[in-house]
Amino acid sequence: MGKWESFFSKDTQLLKSSEIRDLLKLTEGRNVISFAGGLPDPSTFPVEDIKKITNEILESKSSQALQYTATAGVSELREQLVSFSNLRGISNITQNNIFVSVGSQEALYILFNVLVNPGDHVFVEKPTYLTALNVLRTRRPEFHGVPISERGPDLHEMERQLKNLQSEGKKVKLLYIIPTAQNPAGTTMYMEDRKYVMELASKYDFLVVEDDAYGFLVFDGDNPPPLKALDKEGRVIYLGTFSKILSPGLRLGWIVADEEIIREVELFKQNVDLHTPSFNQFIAAEAIRKGVIQNNLPKVKSLYKEKRNQMLSAMDVYFPSNVKRTRPVGGMFVFVWLPGNLNTTQLLQQAMMQGVAYVPGNSFYYDYSGTNTMRINYSFPSKEEINKGIEILGNLIKSKI
Amino acid sequence: MGKWESFFSKDTQLLKSSEIRDLLKLTEGRNVISFAGGLPDPSTFPVEDIKKITNEILESKSSQALQYTATAGVSELREQLVSFSNLRGISNITQNNIFVSVGSQEALYILFNVLVNPGDHVFVEKPTYLTALNVLRTRRPEFHGVPISERGPDLHEMERQLKNLQSEGKKVKLLYIIPTAQNPAGTTMYMEDRKYVMELASKYDFLVVEDDAYGFLVFDGDNPPPLKALDKEGRVIYLGTFSKILSPGLRLGWIVADEEIIREVELFKQNVDLHTPSFNQFIAAEAIRKGVIQNNLPKVKSLYKEKRNQMLSAMDVYFPSNVKRTRPVGGMFVFVWLPGNLNTTQLLQQAMMQGVAYVPGNSFYYDYSGTNTMRINYSFPSKEEINKGIEILGNLIKSKI
Repeated sequence: MGKWESFFSKDTQLLKSSEIRDLLKLTEGRNVISFAGGLPDPSTFPVEDIKKITNEILESKSSQALQYTATAGVSELREQLVSFSNLRGISNITQNNIFVSVGSQEALYILFNVLVNPGDHVFVEKPTYLTALNVLRTRRPEFHGVPISERGPDLHEMERQLKNLQSEGKKVKLLYIIPTAQNPAGTTMYMEDRKYVMELASKYDFLVVEDDAYGFLVFDGDNPPPLKALDKEGRVIYLGTFSKILSPGLRLGWIVADEEIIREVELFKQNVDLHTPSFNQFIAAEAIRKGVIQNNLPKVKSLYKEKRNQMLSAMDVYFPSNVKRTRPVGGMFVFVWLPGNLNTTQLLQQAMMQGVAYVPGNSFYYDYSGTNTMRINYSFPSKEEINKGIEILGNLIKSKI
Repeated sequence: MGKWESFFSKDTQLLKSSEIRDLLKLTEGRNVISFAGGLPDPSTFPVEDIKKITNEILESKSSQALQYTATAGVSELREQLVSFSNLRGISNITQNNIFVSVGSQEALYILFNVLVNPGDHVFVEKPTYLTALNVLRTRRPEFHGVPISERGPDLHEMERQLKNLQSEGKKVKLLYIIPTAQNPAGTTMYMEDRKYVMELASKYDFLVVEDDAYGFLVFDGDNPPPLKALDKEGRVIYLGTFSKILSPGLRLGWIVADEEIIREVELFKQNVDLHTPSFNQFIAAEAIRKGVIQNNLPKVKSLYKEKRNQMLSAMDVYFPSNVKRTRPVGGMFVFVWLPGNLNTTQLLQQAMMQGVAYVPGNSFYYDYSGTNTMRINYSFPSKEEINKGIEILGNLIKSKI
């Protein structure tokens, strides 16, 4: 026991399960090909545009951009996010429906704190984004899982569970869902399924937290509008992020939601950090206003599509045929199922010794099932690293089956 | 009751007491002289230096500065903060003792979440920084107050209470204290009192959260080293901020603490927002490395000293003689005691109608006492506004007594 451990609050006990992060820390500075993170390719950062914008901001509005600003976000950015949301088909909103956060991670953190009590019934996809799960876990809800198939979440299964809960007199609080280019599964829901989710939400009266992190990064097939665009009752809370379309280092995300929910989030954020950095918000506002982000997107999508293709080809060559994998239509990840007796957490240390890292997939399951799965990132590694890393991983898997 | 109110978590019930903020929001865009905020004078922002620095960063290390970085902070800034801490007399630390946060507000938020359980015994000064109190309140501790006199906290009174608690078998968890240019009282503790606090902390085995927000902004008298410089046991957790010495809009603060505590804070922050903006951290690192902050401080201190003098002179002219006030040796605020029967919360609406705003002082007392006090900011308003605003306020007070 550490010297100060007896001083830590009970809440910290929910923060202990970080063996994977500790393990992955070992890759830092070592010659390991990492498929573990979710980093954008830095060649996609519009550096020259950002430089021009920062100079303009410091010349014309430094006394605002370097000063304290409002908790919900600076008006200039909220206004731009209204029109930027229109690009995704979200209309009928004003800047009072917009809230700016320190990455969409902070939006998830605040929303789950504002909405979830211990014991609340919460639906998540199986698998789903692990850091959202980590935050949710600290709220100690009762989890219910919606299995993901090739067409996205199995909504019939979800309806079956909703009916059961209702018959037991239990009320569902919310669904956390990534309808487009799902992380980690790479699936995008059909329009009819999106409507179905909205019908279920209305019928069973729950809120929907819609994570649209990859909504602007769909490079294959249809890209139907987000659930928020179909939301007539104000029950969808939409999350966007600049991390994948401008720069993660600026730490900027946003929420689109009913004003009543925005006000509650604002009160909570006042305690967390007063407000999101003003300078960064002015940069993002100008990057939208000037069309920097919009004009950069085709390049980003085409690069990630190439890298995905490279990754899938390498898997076709080096992975044994009884390994199942997704064919992501967007985003940054391939999800992989090994034969059921293989444990990807146990495999990780060996993989790292051989020079390749990934995230074991069970972290993406609220119940830590999926022990034979792994998430593989293709946006950050180079094409050469993709090829080499998949060869190493394929040989390791073959040696185990 | 709002449409979604039944969906809000129990924790949000602790966030409701914001009448003052709602009231002060009414000043926005109106012609009101505001003594309410804690904003730096924007003329102190080293805009040209920041412009030069941002250009250099975007030219030479954009792929790090715009990318995801480590949760505890970028190595470049943590290293600079080691030497910057030395300027305040804090030595024998490495960058593993440094943690970078989104303003020192986030440091307070995470620390109090990591350290305080409901019912824990926590000491605070009376009065003390209101947003720290707001965060502490959400942790539902048992508060104990240390009254502030002209020489700072009354430590004999604190020792008396510590003895009582000990005799009742109760253990104290922590003390939150602002030893230098206290907010709102403007006092700086003598060296002997600082040693006395450290003896009490050791004897009664509690942690000390030391808020040094104004440690670089002392313009009168001695500026003894912070408690952290006297800390032999690792029980002081030191908080610094760039908000008053570089720019609040960058939202950067830092913690200096024992490595074990840093690791716990890091785990918690991973959930809150993954990490503090990388770009901003590189800016601050360069601003220290190039001496921008160090060279700017004399100008900032001299401006705030002038403004404080202007404020005190105006109070001497316009305030009735039975109004008591502090003579701050640093920082940004004067604290004022009206005759005991006057309620500054009730007075605020009238003051605002007449064109001047302040923060009612009872928000700075954990028990909401101090109903006849107010906090007056002098760093942001111009000298003309200081004079005019104090005249209005003085006349209003005179009309009430």
